[in-house]
Amino acid sequence: MNTLGQFLTLTTFGESHGPAIGGVLDGFPSGITIDFDYIHQFMQRRRPGQSTVTTGRQEKDEVEFLSGLLDGVSTGAPIAFMIRNTDQHSSDYDDLKELFRPSHADYAWEQRYGIRDWRGGGRSSARVTAPVCVAGAMASIAFRKFLPGLEIKAFTSQIGPYSIDPSQEMYFTSAMVESNPVRCPDTDLAKKMEDYINGLRREQDSTGGCVTCIVNGLPAGVGNPVFDKLESSLAKAMLGINAAKGFEYGDGFMSAGQLGSQHNDAFRIENGMITTLTNHSGGIQGGISNGQPIRFRVAFKPTPTIGQQQLTVTRSGKETTMEAKGRHDPCVVPRAVPVVEALTALVLLDQWIASGK
Amino acid sequence: MNTLGQFLTLTTFGESHGPAIGGVLDGFPSGITIDFDYIHQFMQRRRPGQSTVTTGRQEKDEVEFLSGLLDGVSTGAPIAFMIRNTDQHSSDYDDLKELFRPSHADYAWEQRYGIRDWRGGGRSSARVTAPVCVAGAMASIAFRKFLPGLEIKAFTSQIGPYSIDPSQEMYFTSAMVESNPVRCPDTDLAKKMEDYINGLRREQDSTGGCVTCIVNGLPAGVGNPVFDKLESSLAKAMLGINAAKGFEYGDGFMSAGQLGSQHNDAFRIENGMITTLTNHSGGIQGGISNGQPIRFRVAFKPTPTIGQQQLTVTRSGKETTMEAKGRHDPCVVPRAVPVVEALTALVLLDQWIASGK
Amino acid sequence: MNTLGQFLTLTTFGESHGPAIGGVLDGFPSGITIDFDYIHQFMQRRRPGQSTVTTGRQEKDEVEFLSGLLDGVSTGAPIAFMIRNTDQHSSDYDDLKELFRPSHADYAWEQRYGIRDWRGGGRSSARVTAPVCVAGAMASIAFRKFLPGLEIKAFTSQIGPYSIDPSQEMYFTSAMVESNPVRCPDTDLAKKMEDYINGLRREQDSTGGCVTCIVNGLPAGVGNPVFDKLESSLAKAMLGINAAKGFEYGDGFMSAGQLGSQHNDAFRIENGMITTLTNHSGGIQGGISNGQPIRFRVAFKPTPTIGQQQLTVTRSGKETTMEAKGRHDPCVVPRAVPVVEALTALVLLDQWIASGK
Amino acid sequence: MNTLGQFLTLTTFGESHGPAIGGVLDGFPSGITIDFDYIHQFMQRRRPGQSTVTTGRQEKDEVEFLSGLLDGVSTGAPIAFMIRNTDQHSSDYDDLKELFRPSHADYAWEQRYGIRDWRGGGRSSARVTAPVCVAGAMASIAFRKFLPGLEIKAFTSQIGPYSIDPSQEMYFTSAMVESNPVRCPDTDLAKKMEDYINGLRREQDSTGGCVTCIVNGLPAGVGNPVFDKLESSLAKAMLGINAAKGFEYGDGFMSAGQLGSQHNDAFRIENGMITTLTNHSGGIQGGISNGQPIRFRVAFKPTPTIGQQQLTVTRSGKETTMEAKGRHDPCVVPRAVPVVEALTALVLLDQWIASGK
Repeated sequence: MNTLGQFLTLTTFGESHGPAIGGVLDGFPSGITIDFDYIHQFMQRRRPGQSTVTTGRQEKDEVEFLSGLLDGVSTGAPIAFMIRNTDQHSSDYDDLKELFRPSHADYAWEQRYGIRDWRGGGRSSARVTAPVCVAGAMASIAFRKFLPGLEIKAFTSQIGPYSIDPSQEMYFTSAMVESNPVRCPDTDLAKKMEDYINGLRREQDSTGGCVTCIVNGLPAGVGNPVFDKLESSLAKAMLGINAAKGFEYGDGFMSAGQLGSQHNDAFRIENGMITTLTNHSGGIQGGISNGQPIRFRVAFKPTPTIGQQQLTVTRSGKETTMEAKGRHDPCVVPRAVPVVEALTALVLLDQWIASGK
Repeated sequence: MNTLGQFLTLTTFGESHGPAIGGVLDGFPSGITIDFDYIHQFMQRRRPGQSTVTTGRQEKDEVEFLSGLLDGVSTGAPIAFMIRNTDQHSSDYDDLKELFRPSHADYAWEQRYGIRDWRGGGRSSARVTAPVCVAGAMASIAFRKFLPGLEIKAFTSQIGPYSIDPSQEMYFTSAMVESNPVRCPDTDLAKKMEDYINGLRREQDSTGGCVTCIVNGLPAGVGNPVFDKLESSLAKAMLGINAAKGFEYGDGFMSAGQLGSQHNDAFRIENGMITTLTNHSGGIQGGISNGQPIRFRVAFKPTPTIGQQQLTVTRSGKETTMEAKGRHDPCVVPRAVPVVEALTALVLLDQWIASGK
Repeated sequence: MNTLGQFLTLTTFGESHGPAIGGVLDGFPSGITIDFDYIHQFMQRRRPGQSTVTTGRQEKDEVEFLSGLLDGVSTGAPIAFMIRNTDQHSSDYDDLKELFRPSHADYAWEQRYGIRDWRGGGRSSARVTAPVCVAGAMASIAFRKFLPGLEIKAFTSQIGPYSIDPSQEMYFTSAMVESNPVRCPDTDLAKKMEDYINGLRREQDSTGGCVTCIVNGLPAGVGNPVFDKLESSLAKAMLGINAAKGFEYGDGFMSAGQLGSQHNDAFRIENGMITTLTNHSGGIQGGISNGQPIRFRVAFKPTPTIGQQQLTVTRSGKETTMEAKGRHDPCVVPRAVPVVEALTALVLLDQWIASGK
Repeated sequence: MNTLGQFLTLTTFGESHGPAIGGVLDGFPSGITIDFDYIHQFMQRRRPGQSTVTTGRQEKDEVEFLSGLLDGVSTGAPIAFMIRNTDQHSSDYDDLKELFRPSHADYAWEQRYGIRDWRGGGRSSARVTAPVCVAGAMASIAFRKFLPGLEIKAFTSQIGPYSIDPSQEMYFTSAMVESNPVRCPDTDLAKKMEDYINGLRREQDSTGGCVTCIVNGLPAGVGNPVFDKLESSLAKAMLGINAAKGFEYGDGFMSAGQLGSQHNDAFRIENGMITTLTNHSGGIQGGISNGQPIRFRVAFKPTPTIGQQQLTVTRSGKETTMEAKGRHDPCVVPRAVPVVEALTALVLLDQWIASGK
């Protein structure tokens, strides 16, 4: 239930206000020198409190490795790591003990387990994506050895009414993505998104958005047919991110309105290699990579925690109202960008191993 | 790789032009009386050659059960079943032996496995969804015992430019869905879709579309947090269907443009029960059902097999052109409707068992 | 529940008196040319009715392949196969419908599932080992390509009071094993075993025994530490064989009486290669092969079906007596020899793939 | 690879001389109040340095819980825990960096992974059984709620030449087992075993032994047929313990010499309940519990670490000799007793859940 992957498995643990969050990464190739600086930098992109558009919670998210390494090199043993929770304000949540927050997991969790950790969302908090980022950064480090040309690049492609022009995607660089707090590579648009989010924060409201991810350099032949397709695994992983509401790859939902003669990607030979003239398919055919860039998009709903008064009910079944007090992001999308990259790296490394590469 | 589910597992096998297709359903509850008529009827909804909008291939899709039943009652042993392939025209595919069809799995599969079954798409054919329907029908039969009120209802919500009005969804019945060959419950729209598809067939072209699925009667508390969320499992299963390009649940991609104050589903008490005023969430919170209807949508690309001339390459790396000759559906969506229902039943029964219900 | 393996998975199905038994082998390497004659010969070693020491049931055990092959070569798709049951005498078992046979699974199964297939033991019949042999033979065929020197050699090492001299093991050949119906490579001892079994048949009794298995040619470095050790996987697989009661490897239970200074296998260099002076370890250290021959032994209880009158109870809880009438083996061991080899091949190929070889 | 179980899963991590060892227990039922005192006491039975017959390494083995609990009650979230390693003497192992210890995992691990943690055996150290004990104690606590009558009782049944009389087993109590450092419930024999072990310590030698485990109070109907049999799961788990060489249940290897008329357990009615006159089967039929006591035995080889001079080779392929200097147990069996109990509890709870109880 808390394990992702089949050959490379990540089991995560931890709640928003528990002692620690962390994970165990098993099946990680041996002999990989871990670049701790890279992991640290990667974690900074996800950590709370990094900018004005994110939650005010301050967590350094410093990772302690507990096993699986010898002098910083992976040994083939499971790699466990943890991050201590330090800046919990559990008392902010005292009021929530007896009521269910709208569009949060509180009610569903309690129906499932009969008990719930009401402090900051417990296991359903977005804080559980921190261990995913640690493991994803490690998967990326492993790919430096196996596929030096692999590049996984996610960015904010929509915030509320502001959407990026997809025809410009090929020009986006990671530096452009990181140049602004919303992680939108179109800097003009980024400014509008930032203002929009800050306006909503003042209005005690929140907004949804989209993350687009592009993977360059994955060769053809990675994936599996039928039930463990590359796109199935990506979709499963992405829908596991808090607030994710949709996944599409290639032309996605737009394909529903297209003709076959429009959508099909004609094969051609370029520099002696098989390639396609277009990439409506998003780099995957029949569950297996075809050598073109992998491209997919993930939709996120607005953060359910808002300061405005909302109708809700108590655990004992009485109608009431609530206003959220805990710190929260008015938009999860900027911090979801590294999470999407991390999950992509994990899924790809798992499928890479599964494909016997 | 060819197994779906964790507690209830379906392993499928078979290729388009091999001796047979089938599956093994393991973990199926014992003591369930199998309604073979229901399975037969369910299979008729998926089988090729059922109407003018589908492929001309004629397969009766008669299911032979090989194990796991005693006098038609499940014993707890694995239930194996198979369907003999009868109307293969493998010679239609002789030309394809040496070239890769655009936007088919041919090239990717060969890069993955070094060999491919070129006859009718082999394992990558939509024919592999037949065993899914057998197993899904059985899962529905099991739910008659566990959750008599459960209703899984999928329908065609878009074909090319024609989209259904979502505000009418609550009025759609299964009878309305089955009243026309495109499986669109809005009969006026259905006629337009049918004409559109038939027009494309004449033009040797194809179209994409969408299937919407609504599940009524699933109680709160079914699902799992983090990596095996109900929505993750549904997304994984749906993206495993041939030609699927996207999955969204609740307001899906539309959520990206919404405010929290719009999207959140306020809790209320109705008849002494906790309910929500709206269902933007699509019946799932934090990976667990919340008692509201589950609602999701799956996008399908246009059938890649079209009769028009297309650019492609041969296995030996030469550029060439091709025109498809094999029989095929100009639109997969009408036949995908029962497949979506079948996978939904399988995922829900698996999660039902996993949730200790 | 009915699936063995992690990377190479075998899912079996079928009951003693159902329509068919079979399996689905998934994760099998592509590009392997299947040697159907070898499979047929291998199956002959397990099939009932092969000699005087086995059951009188006559089954040809002809295997029909349903998927996963193209012109006899594996494609990477799941390989399904089945064997029709032909010589069922279900009426022999009519009496058993209402009572539980001592030391059979009847009672336990009914407590587990609330229903049981009483015909010939249903899913708990040794007939379920036939698909294991098909898949095991295929794993051996795959190893011809990956590890041509690999040799898996099982034999009957004990029947009742007759035990083989282990110091002679290195001289045993497969031809010696197959030279007699009990599959004991010491032909003098084999004659005594055969007479012993035939005597017991006349007395309506049965006997236990042991199978020893030796694997030559497996290089060092195959296996996994902690919970998926090579010995753990072998033990799990072997105890899944009907009537198996124990598993030991290397010096096994004898090790309990040994000193470290006796048991330890000293490392030496021979022809420039690391080897050990002795092999008390049975070729495995810490869950991973060390390059020495793998050696293990499996104990089997006497066939529980005996013609003598036995005390038992009915389903409705009345004490009664019974005498078995169905055909059965007075000793399962000779037919278990190929089953042990088949499972060994499956476990080794799975671990071979898991070890990234 | 480092995960045990299917529905209740334990993933462990950690090496002998790394920062910490620990585990993640997932699928643990919610609403269980954790008895931390019991866990502490249970851990004391496994910890090093507890008596003269064990290693001199001093570890308090204090468990820190990192997640999954709210006020000491399980929430359904994964329960992570860890134990800091404190008394490592890694320098004791400096000499081992360049050579392979006989009958240790050093050589095999290095062949598998190309790198090994040479400090104290790394991941192959018996230290990895500590997290197993934490999780096993928790499984036992869960059973207090589900099956209050369940009793899992392991004891030392053999040390070198000293074997317990099995006919006395039914009289053994946990108090008798814990009354002496070797954990043998026959106190006279225990004294001899203790003297034997202490003698061997002085001679720089070690000894093997056996642990017997008896489970009372497990109802009929727990387990699964074919590949996940109760005995298969137990065997797999037990063979995963360091130094384990064999597993047998019921009459085990003795069954090989028995007649069916001796071995079969006749059914009778006692107090209106179905029971058996004897228990040669060890409480399991066809992979499923039959309501009689589960009984099995595990064989352990002598500790490979001995102070005597041994022949071995270096990593660079030179013959040499070595004398072990690290602290170690001259016999692992007394400390293996709680490990066997812990694994039994884990396997039973997993199978209990899998059986839908």
